[in-house]
Amino acid sequence: MRRVLVANRGEIAVRVIRAAHAAGLETVAVYSDADAEGRWVQLAGSAVHIGKSAAAKSYLNSAALVEAARETGADAVHPGYGFLSERPGAVKEFTDAGLTFVGPSVSTIETMGDKAAAREAARRADVPIVPGSGPVGDVDEALVAADDVGYPVLLKAAAGGGGRGIRPVASREELVDALPAAQAEARAAFSDDTVYLERAIDGARHIEVQILADHAGNVVHTYERDCSVQRRRQKLIEEAPAPGLSAETRADINEAAVRLARQVGYVGAGTVEFLLTPSGEFFFIEMNTRIQVEHPISEAVTGVDLVSEQLRIAAGQPISFSQDDVRIRGAAVELRINAEDPDNGFRPTPGDLSRLDLPGGPGVRVDTGFVAGDRISPFYDSMIAKLICSGPDRDTALARGRQALTELRVEGVPTTVSMHRRLLDEPDLRAGAVHTRWLEELLPDPT
Amino acid sequence: MRRVLVANRGEIAVRVIRAAHAAGLETVAVYSDADAEGRWVQLAGSAVHIGKSAAAKSYLNSAALVEAARETGADAVHPGYGFLSERPGAVKEFTDAGLTFVGPSVSTIETMGDKAAAREAARRADVPIVPGSGPVGDVDEALVAADDVGYPVLLKAAAGGGGRGIRPVASREELVDALPAAQAEARAAFSDDTVYLERAIDGARHIEVQILADHAGNVVHTYERDCSVQRRRQKLIEEAPAPGLSAETRADINEAAVRLARQVGYVGAGTVEFLLTPSGEFFFIEMNTRIQVEHPISEAVTGVDLVSEQLRIAAGQPISFSQDDVRIRGAAVELRINAEDPDNGFRPTPGDLSRLDLPGGPGVRVDTGFVAGDRISPFYDSMIAKLICSGPDRDTALARGRQALTELRVEGVPTTVSMHRRLLDEPDLRAGAVHTRWLEELLPDPT
Repeated sequence: MRRVLVANRGEIAVRVIRAAHAAGLETVAVYSDADAEGRWVQLAGSAVHIGKSAAAKSYLNSAALVEAARETGADAVHPGYGFLSERPGAVKEFTDAGLTFVGPSVSTIETMGDKAAAREAARRADVPIVPGSGPVGDVDEALVAADDVGYPVLLKAAAGGGGRGIRPVASREELVDALPAAQAEARAAFSDDTVYLERAIDGARHIEVQILADHAGNVVHTYERDCSVQRRRQKLIEEAPAPGLSAETRADINEAAVRLARQVGYVGAGTVEFLLTPSGEFFFIEMNTRIQVEHPISEAVTGVDLVSEQLRIAAGQPISFSQDDVRIRGAAVELRINAEDPDNGFRPTPGDLSRLDLPGGPGVRVDTGFVAGDRISPFYDSMIAKLICSGPDRDTALARGRQALTELRVEGVPTTVSMHRRLLDEPDLRAGAVHTRWLEELLPDPT
Repeated sequence: MRRVLVANRGEIAVRVIRAAHAAGLETVAVYSDADAEGRWVQLAGSAVHIGKSAAAKSYLNSAALVEAARETGADAVHPGYGFLSERPGAVKEFTDAGLTFVGPSVSTIETMGDKAAAREAARRADVPIVPGSGPVGDVDEALVAADDVGYPVLLKAAAGGGGRGIRPVASREELVDALPAAQAEARAAFSDDTVYLERAIDGARHIEVQILADHAGNVVHTYERDCSVQRRRQKLIEEAPAPGLSAETRADINEAAVRLARQVGYVGAGTVEFLLTPSGEFFFIEMNTRIQVEHPISEAVTGVDLVSEQLRIAAGQPISFSQDDVRIRGAAVELRINAEDPDNGFRPTPGDLSRLDLPGGPGVRVDTGFVAGDRISPFYDSMIAKLICSGPDRDTALARGRQALTELRVEGVPTTVSMHRRLLDEPDLRAGAVHTRWLEELLPDPT
């Protein structure tokens, strides 16, 4: 492995370029019409135009990416997150073209991308799963299954993930209409109308475990993150480690994730997501077979460079450390700064970044794909920057987060900064006592 | 302690404000005519104008600072580094006015500010000192002392420090003229013409140990830094930990620093500076009784927030950790980005910062007092920013440093960025094999 094509854009493209350069690898960036001036384009060793602004014509165009790799002599592809990162078809195209894919195998991605198959793998690895059903084909089947699971339930698209393709159902009456609607949605979104049921768990926290696995069979975790501050299942604030976990629960949940990774012969970086109930039980939800937006908080508390490990693993090298080497030092929080208007239903607010003054100092890391003068494009996600604030303890990490929000100055587009300021002062958040519905209850959608 | 007056400017003022706010303390900034728009002025809770642009009329005007504290109800003063931080007279004015001084006592500052007294304290603490003399009053006395010490020698002003007031002397012939010149310089610079002699040690490294001591008698070190990359005794690149130190030397030098701090009843953060010879001997040079520019690299490798500990100690609280809690994780390097022209004798290049795009990502911390649009004033030092780059090992820290230099974009003033790029690729630096004359030999002054 010598030259990595970075098949993504924005902050994660910059992140991969940083890791690759630090490892002595060459980089190739790609860009759409809208992104010709992107910071990642400037930072990479070379850059290839891959198509029009719409993602389907560029960052989702696997043929164009394979061609870009061929043109530039790249021998590996890092997919980042989103776009093609979890699409088995695209991964197969990359590997068929002789490229090293920085991620797990096609079959692992397929297994984990099929929620029913993933549940089955968890069951075999003795990892607790949320009480639920197999695929339900029609309303009668769904009603029987739901009675068994117990209301309220969630209708989930088997091909969904990352919070997409999920519909809460409170009663038999609702289920009758909800099933065909969920099937239609799943078909439209994922070209697969398979849906199944899970018990909806109230007041649960979203806890996810970062794992790394190499070709030599080493599997380690770098501890868990708490990503309970969500809106419509999109994460806004994440923490590492999860606050208030008992040593026993922490050990159990981290070991469960490692067991699952071993069960499926996982290779690469991945995240095993769980629900943690108020009573301390945890249940597997899904596994993300890629690097995640919130990976830096794990890096901040463990000192591990996860993207660098991804590159090592893809190159056939072993993970650079052992499980015993991994220690949590302090705490970290990530604040996603989005070009969105929190007072207006989080409507995206693309536009020109006329100013971007970043915060700094101890324990403050900023990951962004932009500099002042860049444009936040309406074609892609609305994230401007991630503030990763860490410290010797959780209170210090949060205090540094507050200070970083004060220092950050974004002009030109409305952002989520003021919302974050408010959230960090909420007593529930300060106490580490939030769950996945907390934010929606605090900031209900305007009706 | 409730409200801290930050008696400084630029990045260290911002640094102190960050630590104070994270600790729940209020802050008062001060500014001269030239600094009315300073970032620290905007970030502090309130701000007071203290005089004209010339430092003597503002940041060195202790009466104006006492008045600013009185006006704003500040109950403590953090001096930062430089300016009044090591001036016993000013510190006495602060404490006489009932203000808590964030630093050691007047008498400790006096002892350590008098290089002969400091050497005597080191001797008593069984800390090795460079072979040298007591004060030498005239040429005859100096010639006898120099024969005893052995040429080459350094003539040093007793009241000097931070590399100022030092003159190398190669022979008896040189000494005859050098002594009166050194005395005249010392009188002009420090109002004290006392000078003494020390053996000049060739090929030595500058190693300094960060210590913290509280009112309860706890004294800890947070390991050492290597600051051998200097030009005219001004540090340009610093590293933590010092590369290639044996475990025994590391333990010895760190313990020696703690012994000295105990010997003088030190309270606060301080730095004990040593020369380390190629043969592995080390000698005490001086102690700086304040926070130092390069403190962040110690923070990066230990996770300790040194400025926050300074505030705790000043408030009468114990250090928040014990010696056993301090572990080095990885390595860190600091690159000082100055508005100076390295191709032109490092001439300062004040001017308008039309652009300032900062690097980011894992292990990259930026401390700066500026944002794009600010002016680098000719009245003060020329530092624009400190890049603190850390990683799981020294190679990664240096690789991240290279990447950060690529990402950093400063427009409007020439800077030391290109010099740093060159230095990080020098084989000697990569090998950790530099000494205090290395940079001057590599980049000789134009003649």
